[in-house]
Amino acid sequence: MAGNSFGDLFRITTFGESHGPGVGLVIDGCPSRISLSTEDFALDMARRRPGRHAIDTPRHEIDQVEILSGVFEGLTTGAPITLFIRNRDANGKPYEVLRQLFRPGHADYTYFKKYGHFDFKGGGRASARETAARVAAGVVARKILAPPRISVRAYTLELGGIRAGHIDFEQIEKNACYCPDREAAQQMEAALLMARQDKDSLGGIVEVRVNGCPAGLGEPVFDKLDADLAKAVMSVGAVKGVEIGAGFEAARLRGVENNDPITPQGFTTNRSGGILGGISNGDEIVMRAAVKPIPSIGQEQSTVDRKGQPAKLKLKGRFDISAVPRIVPVLEAMVGIVLADHYLRTKALQADN
Amino acid sequence: MAGNSFGDLFRITTFGESHGPGVGLVIDGCPSRISLSTEDFALDMARRRPGRHAIDTPRHEIDQVEILSGVFEGLTTGAPITLFIRNRDANGKPYEVLRQLFRPGHADYTYFKKYGHFDFKGGGRASARETAARVAAGVVARKILAPPRISVRAYTLELGGIRAGHIDFEQIEKNACYCPDREAAQQMEAALLMARQDKDSLGGIVEVRVNGCPAGLGEPVFDKLDADLAKAVMSVGAVKGVEIGAGFEAARLRGVENNDPITPQGFTTNRSGGILGGISNGDEIVMRAAVKPIPSIGQEQSTVDRKGQPAKLKLKGRFDISAVPRIVPVLEAMVGIVLADHYLRTKALQADN
Amino acid sequence: MAGNSFGDLFRITTFGESHGPGVGLVIDGCPSRISLSTEDFALDMARRRPGRHAIDTPRHEIDQVEILSGVFEGLTTGAPITLFIRNRDANGKPYEVLRQLFRPGHADYTYFKKYGHFDFKGGGRASARETAARVAAGVVARKILAPPRISVRAYTLELGGIRAGHIDFEQIEKNACYCPDREAAQQMEAALLMARQDKDSLGGIVEVRVNGCPAGLGEPVFDKLDADLAKAVMSVGAVKGVEIGAGFEAARLRGVENNDPITPQGFTTNRSGGILGGISNGDEIVMRAAVKPIPSIGQEQSTVDRKGQPAKLKLKGRFDISAVPRIVPVLEAMVGIVLADHYLRTKALQADN
Amino acid sequence: MAGNSFGDLFRITTFGESHGPGVGLVIDGCPSRISLSTEDFALDMARRRPGRHAIDTPRHEIDQVEILSGVFEGLTTGAPITLFIRNRDANGKPYEVLRQLFRPGHADYTYFKKYGHFDFKGGGRASARETAARVAAGVVARKILAPPRISVRAYTLELGGIRAGHIDFEQIEKNACYCPDREAAQQMEAALLMARQDKDSLGGIVEVRVNGCPAGLGEPVFDKLDADLAKAVMSVGAVKGVEIGAGFEAARLRGVENNDPITPQGFTTNRSGGILGGISNGDEIVMRAAVKPIPSIGQEQSTVDRKGQPAKLKLKGRFDISAVPRIVPVLEAMVGIVLADHYLRTKALQADN
Repeated sequence: MAGNSFGDLFRITTFGESHGPGVGLVIDGCPSRISLSTEDFALDMARRRPGRHAIDTPRHEIDQVEILSGVFEGLTTGAPITLFIRNRDANGKPYEVLRQLFRPGHADYTYFKKYGHFDFKGGGRASARETAARVAAGVVARKILAPPRISVRAYTLELGGIRAGHIDFEQIEKNACYCPDREAAQQMEAALLMARQDKDSLGGIVEVRVNGCPAGLGEPVFDKLDADLAKAVMSVGAVKGVEIGAGFEAARLRGVENNDPITPQGFTTNRSGGILGGISNGDEIVMRAAVKPIPSIGQEQSTVDRKGQPAKLKLKGRFDISAVPRIVPVLEAMVGIVLADHYLRTKALQADN
Repeated sequence: MAGNSFGDLFRITTFGESHGPGVGLVIDGCPSRISLSTEDFALDMARRRPGRHAIDTPRHEIDQVEILSGVFEGLTTGAPITLFIRNRDANGKPYEVLRQLFRPGHADYTYFKKYGHFDFKGGGRASARETAARVAAGVVARKILAPPRISVRAYTLELGGIRAGHIDFEQIEKNACYCPDREAAQQMEAALLMARQDKDSLGGIVEVRVNGCPAGLGEPVFDKLDADLAKAVMSVGAVKGVEIGAGFEAARLRGVENNDPITPQGFTTNRSGGILGGISNGDEIVMRAAVKPIPSIGQEQSTVDRKGQPAKLKLKGRFDISAVPRIVPVLEAMVGIVLADHYLRTKALQADN
Repeated sequence: MAGNSFGDLFRITTFGESHGPGVGLVIDGCPSRISLSTEDFALDMARRRPGRHAIDTPRHEIDQVEILSGVFEGLTTGAPITLFIRNRDANGKPYEVLRQLFRPGHADYTYFKKYGHFDFKGGGRASARETAARVAAGVVARKILAPPRISVRAYTLELGGIRAGHIDFEQIEKNACYCPDREAAQQMEAALLMARQDKDSLGGIVEVRVNGCPAGLGEPVFDKLDADLAKAVMSVGAVKGVEIGAGFEAARLRGVENNDPITPQGFTTNRSGGILGGISNGDEIVMRAAVKPIPSIGQEQSTVDRKGQPAKLKLKGRFDISAVPRIVPVLEAMVGIVLADHYLRTKALQADN
Repeated sequence: MAGNSFGDLFRITTFGESHGPGVGLVIDGCPSRISLSTEDFALDMARRRPGRHAIDTPRHEIDQVEILSGVFEGLTTGAPITLFIRNRDANGKPYEVLRQLFRPGHADYTYFKKYGHFDFKGGGRASARETAARVAAGVVARKILAPPRISVRAYTLELGGIRAGHIDFEQIEKNACYCPDREAAQQMEAALLMARQDKDSLGGIVEVRVNGCPAGLGEPVFDKLDADLAKAVMSVGAVKGVEIGAGFEAARLRGVENNDPITPQGFTTNRSGGILGGISNGDEIVMRAAVKPIPSIGQEQSTVDRKGQPAKLKLKGRFDISAVPRIVPVLEAMVGIVLADHYLRTKALQADN
């Protein structure tokens, strides 16, 4: 298939481009009789929206989610739920130069090679705007996870080399960086401002934690819970690495250090990140994603045109300095989508008694 | 689905347990008229087999691949190819104690929670023996990749904290650690011996490189080439992290450092690891996987029994000290399987001209 | 999955209800650089629209197809194509009585049993309006079939017991019944008028013929071309039977009669309907679908309410007398969708040479 | 995909050829802790086996089902269940002439066109032997349907133009034709003998009835229960038509005749065949399949060779005279497989309460 669907039982198909009518998605596989309204999406869409920072891109999208299908008298019907978010602020002009030149670090070059032409006005499907659809899907996923009391939280662990020293969930929503450490958040903001002065951009690390996940979610072998989480997170544009529990650190540990002892009260450590043999073990699920610096920068860069001739490209306009804060709700959504899917899958194959 | 299939057009379904009749797989989606015989599998199966090291587990499996279907007069027919590898050396006795106790770091606990019972004689589907089927699938995948001249090489980049200082492809097959640096390989062997004396185990990092991959493989959004590679690699039991190109290092780079400049001669750097926007860019694909230390160790560990009562477990017998060398051909296979699948998918959706 | 997707490589997902914002679909797997515009849909949407007959339901939908995604500068991009058809004439009032009573022959009862509630204003997903999305998908499928010169034609073979005596393709568009026999068409119109006087409805048989299909389309075993065609056609609401080639008549033939002799000039008969072993043989593909009489009739009928209490239901308003003429473009679309999908699948797995 | 898998949650993948090592299948998606042993298959395999009639082909296969994976200590584990049925009686010699000539009515011609070569020794995947794997899968499906008390019965409704006059379930297993009418069964046997004398073959109609199916199985739109049943049944080699409930007869009924009135005691008629809007309504499910006469006949037939040159072919050996009796357990199995799959799917998407 062409890769725009994700999930097995709770299955989402996203569509749309940043410079067309809008972006959206179809959810096929949402149980019936779950309350759902336009208002349910407002908070999450606002969290993903740029414009929180002074330093954000000034494109002010009003990301209002329309429900095009699947809800009747306030409840899901079991039919496909279609959500649509209109583009309001699209403006084709600043991108005309990109008809010929490939932006380094972007998908322009590979889309052109793959498809022979591409939507150069904002990158088509490679646009970060596609993630608005993922966040909307995450809202519905969270409704499925509510009865079993599974909750997902993501935050900025590191940005521009500055790392949170401790995790205070209360702080996350109080700063524009979604950082759980107030002082680190202030340093991150300062780093973003400096990078903007340099016409440069910053990367970082997002951490996601899942609480309340019962033991038993995930399928052995290929659809391991961690494998599906890795795919979900790596499928977000700027992500270049993903790790579960001890992650890359586990490569340098010994078995005696890395094994989590089991006691009647549970696991005494959580090197595994809550997943053993691809199946949740009932402990907290912990994972991290490495986010590359945004490739759109104001400095002059070397590139080629569509005929392969060398060219210099200096992007104009204002860009986000880092994908990190905005990617936090996106990763939260993707993790929720994976869990909702595996929750339904696990239910389906439980033996009748 | 229950998670034992992988791939979309080139689709594999593995089956089998380490203490049943054997392990195997069905490949549905292999083009017809590709030569295939039992001998094609011998070298790769031998590379995955334990017993290369003095220090390896002494279980001597003779991993002979039987072709149960899909080949006629030496050529694939387009029908499902079934490959079967009989278990020869299975012995139920040493595992009887595991009927009650969960091994820390293994999937025993989560399988029991998920299924209510499990094949405790070797771990059922969580057994490393399942990877024999993956290696066999990789042999067929490589045949699909041969005409477009795409080749995959994996090797041990790091083991027990010792890292290869340089990459000499010639060295890889010359040492039991599959390490591309001869001196590092010797240190790794020494580290393995020391860990064995300590009744402990070691982790490491495997790197995979793909050469000859044309630009254009991978589907946007969810089935990005890197997302599918991440899932493929993370689905291998001991892997706890995966990164593409600069990976976690990219989180600390600035945009100007991380963007790969484009010239008429190609990209001047390869921070992207050969993938932009989820699609291959024609450069070398580079990725790494973090491998945890093997959880089976000879030291006494804390655990519980099936009723949740505390217990001490001291595993007897000889175990592998590290999954790393044996996982090298497995990751090579998984990457090949992803590429074969995306190669066929890309071909299917190319416009007719 | 929840059943709103169809196809493997050319994959459609339909959504929407007759009394919500509209109906639509996402196509994932359309090759890039195919010209596509809103106008391409006009003719086919008009063919499916009611109001061709004097006797049709007077609900005048203007079925304008909006392209919400996947087209850039007039060409498909390879991204998902989203098509949306707004409902214009929805009016909740006449249906309020159906909040309690199940209409015999409709899906009200089964939806209620399955989902616990349902969109009683027009039947939700069971509404014939859903087929507008299928017809739109068929337009795109036909574009994929154009380069290999595969064409699909459907027509009314039988309506209310009146059967076309001969097949004149020129006649099909010249009468409101889409009947290829002019005299039979006139009799069918008369039968429709009589049934309307009786407050009753009529069934019929639609035949579909595919020309230009090369040998080799279809996958053995489960995804046989005829199996997928059968599913596609049976998935249309009113269809209760499907047959290929000689169909049910074959049950009474002898082998020597039913086998199509092969000559250098091709098959001398076409009992097989152009498909052997589930794969197209290069001959014309011929199939028929049995269409039941529309269940909405003006006569009083016995039913029960949501609590299981007996009730009498007399539907008011004007209804279509037969699904048959309007289903003709729908079945044409479904057959085109199956062929487009199998065309791409066949291309994907052809051996490289 | 290449078409050898069927089902969504209860997913089977069949493999194997009639002249290779054997045929088999993998079931992925069977719940754990269901008892399963080799003996469970014996009766069904015997029912499908030729040799019941004096007039059957004399090839005596002993269809013993081996369990290669997925069962531990007598219970399913949730892992893939692999079943294998070895070929015992294969003999390549009589088929050598078929290396060049295509048998009329068989898949030889289309396989050659699709794949460029094919297993001419018995037809490869198009062999009726593939259905042994389906019957084995049906045994496992029946175990899933046992707790909800869903049962499937198939029988010969018509053979060689002779139709059962009444349905007496007790008779089905008492005659070699699986006919529920004793006198009709005797006439069918006589017709088979006459056809054999003529070196010809006969077709027929198989009817399948499902009892105990609760309301609510089936997914709207594409994966309607009847659509999936139609695909399942049409995917069996010799089937050329399928109908549900009134089927093709419904095309000639009026709405008032075809609608099943609803009463507090249930539906008073069953024209719908137990399915409304693609979802089971709690009534008996009734469907019929048209089976063509077996194409292998002893009379001389016209064909071409691989180079397209005209040829005469006279098949030697003894062949089955009709597929009908042997196809009865196959269709029973296919219907059971569809129901098991939809039963699990329905369970998965039921709202939590």
